[in-house]
Amino acid sequence: MADFPKYEYKYRVYYEHTDAGGVVYHSRYLNFFERARTDWLRDNGMVQSQMQKELNMIYVVTAADIQFKKPARMDDALTVSSQLVKIKRASMDIYQEMHNQDNQLLATVMIKAACLQADNFRVVALPQKLREDLMK
Amino acid sequence: MADFPKYEYKYRVYYEHTDAGGVVYHSRYLNFFERARTDWLRDNGMVQSQMQKELNMIYVVTAADIQFKKPARMDDALTVSSQLVKIKRASMDIYQEMHNQDNQLLATVMIKAACLQADNFRVVALPQKLREDLMK
Amino acid sequence: MADFPKYEYKYRVYYEHTDAGGVVYHSRYLNFFERARTDWLRDNGMVQSQMQKELNMIYVVTAADIQFKKPARMDDALTVSSQLVKIKRASMDIYQEMHNQDNQLLATVMIKAACLQADNFRVVALPQKLREDLMK
Amino acid sequence: MADFPKYEYKYRVYYEHTDAGGVVYHSRYLNFFERARTDWLRDNGMVQSQMQKELNMIYVVTAADIQFKKPARMDDALTVSSQLVKIKRASMDIYQEMHNQDNQLLATVMIKAACLQADNFRVVALPQKLREDLMK
Repeated sequence: MADFPKYEYKYRVYYEHTDAGGVVYHSRYLNFFERARTDWLRDNGMVQSQMQKELNMIYVVTAADIQFKKPARMDDALTVSSQLVKIKRASMDIYQEMHNQDNQLLATVMIKAACLQADNFRVVALPQKLREDLMK
Repeated sequence: MADFPKYEYKYRVYYEHTDAGGVVYHSRYLNFFERARTDWLRDNGMVQSQMQKELNMIYVVTAADIQFKKPARMDDALTVSSQLVKIKRASMDIYQEMHNQDNQLLATVMIKAACLQADNFRVVALPQKLREDLMK
Repeated sequence: MADFPKYEYKYRVYYEHTDAGGVVYHSRYLNFFERARTDWLRDNGMVQSQMQKELNMIYVVTAADIQFKKPARMDDALTVSSQLVKIKRASMDIYQEMHNQDNQLLATVMIKAACLQADNFRVVALPQKLREDLMK
Repeated sequence: MADFPKYEYKYRVYYEHTDAGGVVYHSRYLNFFERARTDWLRDNGMVQSQMQKELNMIYVVTAADIQFKKPARMDDALTVSSQLVKIKRASMDIYQEMHNQDNQLLATVMIKAACLQADNFRVVALPQKLREDLMK
């Protein structure tokens, strides 16, 4: 996974993310992973709300394979990375990792995402410009 | 608040609703209150997804005044009531209570809701038939 | 996967589960899957809040491999199944499916879960009685 | 409300916060308000996870009176302010506002919060040092 650049963003854990087990609720790791993909796309010129409004395109997760290694906890400062693994005409595979402030690996995920028409959920090609920008 | 009927629905608390304090996260009481309004409207013939698609109408909360009395906890079986207090052409006031399985009052809320056009968020009158059904 | 019984529960989709794409937000499929496991364990005599308080045990997800087939939508009545695939001293693999009211398969997941001591997150054996009940 | 300083923090809206109405789901405004109070307390030396672990204290919302003025939307950059209105031995009133990147007022809330012992939910006095720091 050395070919594509790795993007990293930092997010804080608040009470809303935790559960009565005292740590971050398992599904919310996906929320942090999705934020990091959103910010990565934004930094490559793709603002999803504009894409939906102007191009009738949305970008959806079709599969996620998550490994939970250690719990994220209230007040943690998380670093979430995103790295393209494969990009095709209408889909991408993205590998992501989450570390805490002590550089412990908390979770990894392999995401498969597809580009769809927002009004009918049919597969549509990613804009060529975005594909090129993401592969730089 | 004796004029309008009171509707009650039951919901379970799962891990997703709790936080690291060991009880339900405060904003999620509003989620349970909203479920009870959704089910009350559904039982009066108004399915919100249809209303949005067929009538271009959505129903939004414009104010909420919540009192938290006792915490809701993991595995609780909640009873949530909804009672119309006032209904106008395009808005409603609804009073709601949440009790647990021991009949302890956990929270109350006064909700102000308005009916809007889904695509431009302009105020629009509630369907006359629904207004009449809700006041029965 | 024919050896262990399949448990099914029904859940409703409310506004809180959806996102601006118009369908259920991807991570919340895991919330519905977790509810179904909670209700399955409850129906086998294991109430998680009691387990945490009385036995100092919690049950955590260590991996999840999810396939999203079709979107779940506002007002859908979901059927979520859970079926044990493998059970060991301190861990289980559970296969789950989500269908909508038209019997369309929306999502599947393979969950790996482990039993931990609640206060220090060390692995601990599942109670023998529960293991036997789950395998019946 | 001129006596106490106003603290402001910025947060981004992601897909997880929105609903099928196309805007932020109403209860999640409270999540953003809670983040801003958490960051305000942190900047005054009170890290809540430490407070819970070391002092057996948690800080809970006992009432919230929210006005929703305009919807927050996907990709918005929100500014959330917090200002102490009243502080007593074991409780505080905090007034908060949320604005978007165009400086439109989206929502306001008056929060009543209390300090409790984490293990039994009994009221307990705020640490004197924190009270003084918050009033500076």
